[in-house]
Amino acid sequence: MKTRFYNARILTMADGIGISEGELHVDGDKISYIGKDCKDGEFDKEIDCKGNVLMPGFKNAHAHTAMTFLRSFADDLPLQEWLYNRVFPMEAKLTPDRVYWLTRLGILEYLTSGITASFDMYMKTDAIANANIDSGFRTVICDSMNNFGGSVEQMEKDYDRLNAIDPLVSYHLGFHAEYTTSSELMKQLSDLANRRKLPVFVHISETKNEVEGCKERYGMTPTEYLDSIGMYNYGGGGYHCVWMSEKDFEIYKEKKLFAVTNPASNLKLASGVAPICRFLKEGIPVAIGTDGPASNNCLDMFREMFLVTGLQKVKEYDAEACDAADVLKMACVNGALAMGLTDCDTLAVGKKADIIEIDLNQPNMQPLNNIAKNIVYAGSKQNVKRTMVNGKLLYECGEFFVGEKPETIYEKANVIIKEMSNE
Amino acid sequence: MKTRFYNARILTMADGIGISEGELHVDGDKISYIGKDCKDGEFDKEIDCKGNVLMPGFKNAHAHTAMTFLRSFADDLPLQEWLYNRVFPMEAKLTPDRVYWLTRLGILEYLTSGITASFDMYMKTDAIANANIDSGFRTVICDSMNNFGGSVEQMEKDYDRLNAIDPLVSYHLGFHAEYTTSSELMKQLSDLANRRKLPVFVHISETKNEVEGCKERYGMTPTEYLDSIGMYNYGGGGYHCVWMSEKDFEIYKEKKLFAVTNPASNLKLASGVAPICRFLKEGIPVAIGTDGPASNNCLDMFREMFLVTGLQKVKEYDAEACDAADVLKMACVNGALAMGLTDCDTLAVGKKADIIEIDLNQPNMQPLNNIAKNIVYAGSKQNVKRTMVNGKLLYECGEFFVGEKPETIYEKANVIIKEMSNE
Repeated sequence: MKTRFYNARILTMADGIGISEGELHVDGDKISYIGKDCKDGEFDKEIDCKGNVLMPGFKNAHAHTAMTFLRSFADDLPLQEWLYNRVFPMEAKLTPDRVYWLTRLGILEYLTSGITASFDMYMKTDAIANANIDSGFRTVICDSMNNFGGSVEQMEKDYDRLNAIDPLVSYHLGFHAEYTTSSELMKQLSDLANRRKLPVFVHISETKNEVEGCKERYGMTPTEYLDSIGMYNYGGGGYHCVWMSEKDFEIYKEKKLFAVTNPASNLKLASGVAPICRFLKEGIPVAIGTDGPASNNCLDMFREMFLVTGLQKVKEYDAEACDAADVLKMACVNGALAMGLTDCDTLAVGKKADIIEIDLNQPNMQPLNNIAKNIVYAGSKQNVKRTMVNGKLLYECGEFFVGEKPETIYEKANVIIKEMSNE
Repeated sequence: MKTRFYNARILTMADGIGISEGELHVDGDKISYIGKDCKDGEFDKEIDCKGNVLMPGFKNAHAHTAMTFLRSFADDLPLQEWLYNRVFPMEAKLTPDRVYWLTRLGILEYLTSGITASFDMYMKTDAIANANIDSGFRTVICDSMNNFGGSVEQMEKDYDRLNAIDPLVSYHLGFHAEYTTSSELMKQLSDLANRRKLPVFVHISETKNEVEGCKERYGMTPTEYLDSIGMYNYGGGGYHCVWMSEKDFEIYKEKKLFAVTNPASNLKLASGVAPICRFLKEGIPVAIGTDGPASNNCLDMFREMFLVTGLQKVKEYDAEACDAADVLKMACVNGALAMGLTDCDTLAVGKKADIIEIDLNQPNMQPLNNIAKNIVYAGSKQNVKRTMVNGKLLYECGEFFVGEKPETIYEKANVIIKEMSNE
């Protein structure tokens, strides 16, 4: 399958936010040409972009996709009550089949927001993998082991199996959080990470309580504790990273960890505002995630991007803080690097064709004063005209091409939540 | 023109956020029926809502619509530099014709976000009125007098003239801000407000600097000063209301003033987070505005609604703070009341047909656990399927019906900003 996009503005993200005019070709799952003139005359599909922007898809660097079933199910509650009394009892009822359909629902929403890959921490990992493969979507599954489920032994098996299952699927070591996981399990995982030389990802320093609890348990912050048991010797990173100590910043720098920020979730669960400007100052790479739809409740990279910069500006009382160019890099490039998707970070010949078309022929994108800033400050899902993953158009002009009708997926999700509520 | 919406979920906002199933009829500019069964067989247009939500349109209770020309023109700058060095010099080049086209561009974006009326504070008031009339959009113009333009004499003339010009247009007394307006002008305006028994609206307590400057000038906060000269004897309200004193809250309660919050703008210009929970506790009505596209940069009530509640949750460190139901009331009902649009606040027989259809057949609205919370926490422009103002469908399934092609309006806006940059 060869696709030609022409009459486009191209934002490769390879050199900042400069935009050139021209065309882009896709051959199979890869970008085969970016330039001014068409060099090859035969295509299966030719798309007139009408001056719209082509750019790398957004990477959702922290998600629990299947939690779509709990969207708007338990809002306006504190994190601990929300998690222990509402979320965990419902999650106990999940089956692989349910996770499969609930993940497919989340993937539909990713496509509407120009997201081309998710870093998905959830249980029933085979169901997640299959939902992504069947949809044609790219996922990096992160293990969510904790005291209530999973084991390091299983994780090693999953690592080998899921990294070989399909080009769209990869898998990282991970666990839920320090406060839900015994020191024994964490040490076992650290041993595995060191033995296999692998990075580890985990929810970290999301709330003040979590950090205080960890200090009581171990006399250290969660990041300090994990570092002390060698968890980060081969990199990895943390989700949320709101309540960071000076020592935590040093560890992130030294171990080259990624800080994945989830601003909408941190607002909605009243967790706090992450120190993004400080990460930028220290040269610590920041990526952006939506978190799960139970705590956000939407899966929208545009909202997250605005929040990343807007919250920093008001946190620092500095309207210059956290420039739009930095935010765009977090959403496209850093997310890919955190997830190990080094072929999906920018638009360049030989890179994977994970590409989105941003519709500039919409009132919120006019006039064309500064297109990159417009995307960060004024963009919305409504501007996503096309989403291509691995060379295939999965979303185009409001229609989905994911091997299943959206109505079928909506119906499945509604039946699942009704059944689970009655069980 | 008679329109029938059937197979709908109806959220009237007249009794909280309860939703009933049924249909809604429009006759001319008014709602003529809401109920279970169709009582009248002849319609010019019948719309199958396919289970989607009909609700009152959002009211943009503070805007500078024509500032579309400065969208993404001067981002990442502090408020004073942004305002004095970038905005004011460009605004000096505005002509009525330019304001007309730039306002028409903003109206297009309002329609995509389900906004059915704007409270529009800007200069060249006749051009604003004509842009709205020609688009079929509803506006309440608020005068923006300050030391550099406008007069109380002119305001009284405009009040009488613009309130009679067209059913879509009304006009309120107002001025830019205490820090840009002499005490003489403010006192003249207070005299007019008292003589004609009218409310007055103004930017107030947007930044800490503004409040401190006012204290130096008058020994009082801006709200205290304006109250001391009788400005609020017949009501009105303030835009922004971020830095409020205890006395300010008392004045807002006593004078029944509206607090209009602009959270995205307050983040982007690093102004602060308004004390919405305190307003709610005191029973002070809060409405929501996007502010102008130069400081936001998008005109999106969904983003504003999420910010209103999300920022309060984190400001108070309380995930229960500022429930979605309160936010929806601010966006639909309180906005209308602040603007004097007492016929546009809810869906009821005899009220104006300012109605939006929210598309639930989208992944971000599924499953249907709690539709009202979904709209606030997960909604986006992509969910606005139809926007009807004054009984006319101006936006339907991505197409505009505003008497002018959007492409023409985009082209005009791009030419205008190019001309202005070169003058």
